[in-house]
Amino acid sequence: MDEVGKAPSHQSHLLAQERKRRSFDLEELTIFLNGGADSYKAKNEMEAIVLKDPILRQDDLHFLSHEEEYRFSLQRSKRAIELLRELKLEWGSAKANKFWQAAESESFPVGLNLHMFTHALASQGTKEQVDFWVPLAKDFRIIGCYAQTELGHGSFLRGLETRAEYDQTTQEFILNTPTLTSMKWWPGSLGKTATHALVIARLYMAGRERGIHMFIMQLRDMETHQPLPGITVGNIGPRVGYNPNDNGFLGLKNVRIPRMHMLMRFAEVTPDGRYASLTRAAKPSYGTMVWIRAGLVTSRAVKLSKAVTIAIRYSAVRQQGHIDDKAGEVAVLDYVSQQHLLFPLLATSLAYLHVGRWLYAEYVRYRPDNAMQAAEMHANSSTLKALSAYVATKGIETCRRACGGHGYSRFSGLPHIYKYATAAETYEGEAMVLHLQTGRFLMKALRLFKSGQTLTGTIKYLSHWLTVVSDTSPIVPAGKSLADLFVLSNVFECAAARLIALAGRKLEHFLEQDGLSKEQAMNRAAPWLVRASEAHGEALFLVRFASIGDAKLSRPAREMLKGCALLYGLWRIEENTMFFMETGTLTPGNIQSAREHISELLALLRPDVVSLVDAFDHPDEVLHSALGAYDGDVYKRMYDYAKREPLNKTEVADGIHEYLKPLMKSKV
Amino acid sequence: MDEVGKAPSHQSHLLAQERKRRSFDLEELTIFLNGGADSYKAKNEMEAIVLKDPILRQDDLHFLSHEEEYRFSLQRSKRAIELLRELKLEWGSAKANKFWQAAESESFPVGLNLHMFTHALASQGTKEQVDFWVPLAKDFRIIGCYAQTELGHGSFLRGLETRAEYDQTTQEFILNTPTLTSMKWWPGSLGKTATHALVIARLYMAGRERGIHMFIMQLRDMETHQPLPGITVGNIGPRVGYNPNDNGFLGLKNVRIPRMHMLMRFAEVTPDGRYASLTRAAKPSYGTMVWIRAGLVTSRAVKLSKAVTIAIRYSAVRQQGHIDDKAGEVAVLDYVSQQHLLFPLLATSLAYLHVGRWLYAEYVRYRPDNAMQAAEMHANSSTLKALSAYVATKGIETCRRACGGHGYSRFSGLPHIYKYATAAETYEGEAMVLHLQTGRFLMKALRLFKSGQTLTGTIKYLSHWLTVVSDTSPIVPAGKSLADLFVLSNVFECAAARLIALAGRKLEHFLEQDGLSKEQAMNRAAPWLVRASEAHGEALFLVRFASIGDAKLSRPAREMLKGCALLYGLWRIEENTMFFMETGTLTPGNIQSAREHISELLALLRPDVVSLVDAFDHPDEVLHSALGAYDGDVYKRMYDYAKREPLNKTEVADGIHEYLKPLMKSKV
Repeated sequence: MDEVGKAPSHQSHLLAQERKRRSFDLEELTIFLNGGADSYKAKNEMEAIVLKDPILRQDDLHFLSHEEEYRFSLQRSKRAIELLRELKLEWGSAKANKFWQAAESESFPVGLNLHMFTHALASQGTKEQVDFWVPLAKDFRIIGCYAQTELGHGSFLRGLETRAEYDQTTQEFILNTPTLTSMKWWPGSLGKTATHALVIARLYMAGRERGIHMFIMQLRDMETHQPLPGITVGNIGPRVGYNPNDNGFLGLKNVRIPRMHMLMRFAEVTPDGRYASLTRAAKPSYGTMVWIRAGLVTSRAVKLSKAVTIAIRYSAVRQQGHIDDKAGEVAVLDYVSQQHLLFPLLATSLAYLHVGRWLYAEYVRYRPDNAMQAAEMHANSSTLKALSAYVATKGIETCRRACGGHGYSRFSGLPHIYKYATAAETYEGEAMVLHLQTGRFLMKALRLFKSGQTLTGTIKYLSHWLTVVSDTSPIVPAGKSLADLFVLSNVFECAAARLIALAGRKLEHFLEQDGLSKEQAMNRAAPWLVRASEAHGEALFLVRFASIGDAKLSRPAREMLKGCALLYGLWRIEENTMFFMETGTLTPGNIQSAREHISELLALLRPDVVSLVDAFDHPDEVLHSALGAYDGDVYKRMYDYAKREPLNKTEVADGIHEYLKPLMKSKV
Repeated sequence: MDEVGKAPSHQSHLLAQERKRRSFDLEELTIFLNGGADSYKAKNEMEAIVLKDPILRQDDLHFLSHEEEYRFSLQRSKRAIELLRELKLEWGSAKANKFWQAAESESFPVGLNLHMFTHALASQGTKEQVDFWVPLAKDFRIIGCYAQTELGHGSFLRGLETRAEYDQTTQEFILNTPTLTSMKWWPGSLGKTATHALVIARLYMAGRERGIHMFIMQLRDMETHQPLPGITVGNIGPRVGYNPNDNGFLGLKNVRIPRMHMLMRFAEVTPDGRYASLTRAAKPSYGTMVWIRAGLVTSRAVKLSKAVTIAIRYSAVRQQGHIDDKAGEVAVLDYVSQQHLLFPLLATSLAYLHVGRWLYAEYVRYRPDNAMQAAEMHANSSTLKALSAYVATKGIETCRRACGGHGYSRFSGLPHIYKYATAAETYEGEAMVLHLQTGRFLMKALRLFKSGQTLTGTIKYLSHWLTVVSDTSPIVPAGKSLADLFVLSNVFECAAARLIALAGRKLEHFLEQDGLSKEQAMNRAAPWLVRASEAHGEALFLVRFASIGDAKLSRPAREMLKGCALLYGLWRIEENTMFFMETGTLTPGNIQSAREHISELLALLRPDVVSLVDAFDHPDEVLHSALGAYDGDVYKRMYDYAKREPLNKTEVADGIHEYLKPLMKSKV
């Protein structure tokens, strides 16, 4: 059977035919989706370097054990940094970022040294501390990590138990994790890699607690890499994904570090044991968080678009069953049920790409001195992160299921995308926690509106809709179609405004009628607050994505993208009907017509979808997918991958003669 | 830190406190949920044997590579069969089944030999064939597998390409997989284990095609286990889960087998090359399929209940943040948002357990000579399987996310449950395919109703609701609460009836107004047909689960279960609002009050939930979860597991001196 596949396969032919059907200019859209000509050029250049490098390209991705993954990513880290230096790319430059993105793929165990460790140092250290430590980290003279989370304590800082006691006699801090629950747990790079850690601990001075501070601690001998005395450190074991990232645990028993290893930008411990909180202390800034979340929305777009690329290419070449008996087997992409699964997810990738960029632009515009604006941006980034992480992960799973049995094979590449994507549902804030934060902001906005203040920015719609129509009446004018981005935008914002008002009424009820404390009332009202935050997030996504119609693109591409925005909006209505029903914003007739419009849009987009996923421009070596490669030669790739399965190295597997044969001959 | 955990931990104490709060008799409910006293006793007895066996208990579950998983499951298979013989358990007996369930855990590479291989043989072979082959398989003299699916062809039988040509001169069949896409792909046990396969191939006799038949083929030498000439066989590589199951590929090049190796119960090839389709041929029976699907609904219940057990126990001991500042950190289970995630899933486990049993009872009652009844049961089993596989897998993921970061660790046990659970979303029929099958049946029922026939059984509601109220008016009488199982049952059935009618109108439209062929119209109407099938399935689940109020249990347990049924129904309305909105069955006010009722039910069930998951009775050794063990000692278990991580065998990991140290010393 090996000889098959030398001539272009039937599958490749089918995909080539699909590509002839597109309505738009492929190059123009590819450049647009990849952030413009310069960005696209840099990506191509750096990706080419990485993907032809025999160490950096990850040919064996699907076959590695946890230990092998770790070892291999050390090797790849080393190679990436060597190349970075060879190419004389300056860390932080646009090209270096593209290079690192392509090389790191998911996570190097030395990556956090460059990101979180230096970032926290730079923001919390004195000038002297920054000047001393940051260059060491950037040159990889030390490998740092950021150790905050504990086994029993997550994002709730006040719960942390790790202790740092100041010993005035030796001018040292003595660090301890006095309980099992206080062990540091989860920090990336901590397990087997880092030589140093920024340890977040509660400071005690002469028995008095002085709050949470950061301490630089050497963990391992610089020559032997053995843990230093008093330090228990190791890898926390296998996770769903991110195994190369070396998440670790850390136990401390009377570990002493010099006084100057406390980061002292905002608070000082003097040699003689005085504590001073310094006036140069800034308010905690939301900036970094918003920046990280903008990145997360964009990377959700990228991950989902990879999954959609795989599922759409495979669906175009996978043939099964008949629609018309005479026409032979049809591509599963011609089944409307399959289109209904996949095309909305394609549109969602575009939505997240577009809105991720918008959120990043908001972050750039952001001025921390405007408290309401800061709170608004933080709230927006919270709900957008929570929603996009959830919908993208669910969408990746839908893509996997849409590939049938083969999707369940790791060779589809989809399980790999999923296992990294789903991590973002919990890291940087679990969805419920984030929605409740946004809910708090929305309640604040509602109070401002009720007190007669003018709301601006992204929350302006609240005052508009609560003023214009304060009841639950339907808002789509008779004769108006839902397949209209202006109408859809109104529908989403109106539903959100009404759900915010409803949550406000519930909260008031719990406070006033039931006499609960504020926190108890917030807890009881949680389901309403979460729903309000979700509706606000859905409105943000739809309304910003709707502006894609203004993109500087030639008409066919623009029209196609507008079709995607419509499909996205109508599909979100399908997925969240409750928002629109509970608030009376839409009627049963509206919902029925939404379904009709979706049907029409699926047919409209059908000829373009294969080219549209081409425009995301994910190289085969990045997708690692037998099903999603550019040439469509899926069956040859499945077989080629299977030949490399370690169990197939020998015809008779290990264990057969030891266990199976005796069983087959044993007495019955 | 190791000394911690010798005294009962704080976490264990919290869980013990929870157990004091229950309203019902634990033993009574445990026996009820485990299928009655006899079944529960057998489970306990067999589980005890398996879980104390050093080979069968799977202590290293979280640390195995693909090759190790396979080798280990061969060892475990051998041990299980030895024990089965030692205990003199007869294969197929209730006790043997309980034993096998406990021992196999997920999948032995020899399991299909006992199930699919012998079953297909028994149903398709002549008496002589059955008498010869089945005992060989049951005694493990041969290891058989069932080879149907091909690399390019799934459930669509007509697409299969494997050929069997009859050679009259030697009285043999010559089998070939002439193309890459015709290679057998996916059959369990095929890769490295099976010595024999039932190969499904298209028969050709003197150039004439004679349809699909089954052939017994020896694959490997019985002594050396080497593949026989002309046979290419191997493992298809890593999948999301089921890796011990040894799914394989098979290529055939002029493999000759004796004439009598074709299964000839329903068709005969005579020595001189005549083909006869025999009159004793039965119509294809849906029986086995319904039986498998009833089992799948039940096993969805079991898998989801494991995940819920883990998440609820962990949420009861995980403390984070404050609700009341004075009260100290609270268990995350006290957050209403967390309750809203988990309690409906607990109710869903109960629903699936109950309805799985109902479906099995239906299968037992089933008479294949009643065509309409057979079609109804097949349609019901299709939508129930599709819905439960989807909702349970999604629910398991919700449980994982509800455990925050620790859920992402494999030590939570949740990723293991997920990776097996999600397989059922595609095997035995992908959801869209199943819903479209059910959709076809519902259209048939609708036509019967319109032609004036009386509908009976589970579809009777269709005629009732289309007769009583044929419009889209709301059906909950003013003043009636939605928190009433009778009202809820009506709401679900009415919405389903209306969605079936709507799908019928769409289909008619495509047929008559657009002039499409029947198959084209079915394809265009797919979104409506799928929705109708889903609504029918939701109604089946709710209405059957609602009968739990009649269970023979003392009052407190019954009341609690009725609360679960209410919560389940109201939650499904939240999740599927579109069904009720599009059909006008519920009003915005109904939806708002559904939310209120859910809130009340969460509070009502809160004291019982920890005991309720105890009643599922999943032993720690089955959960394999650091977070979900009975004693609540989660942090100690996380640490104990982590110490066993292979990377922690040495303080300095492999690769550090080779890659990291040179990097740290290299020229900048």
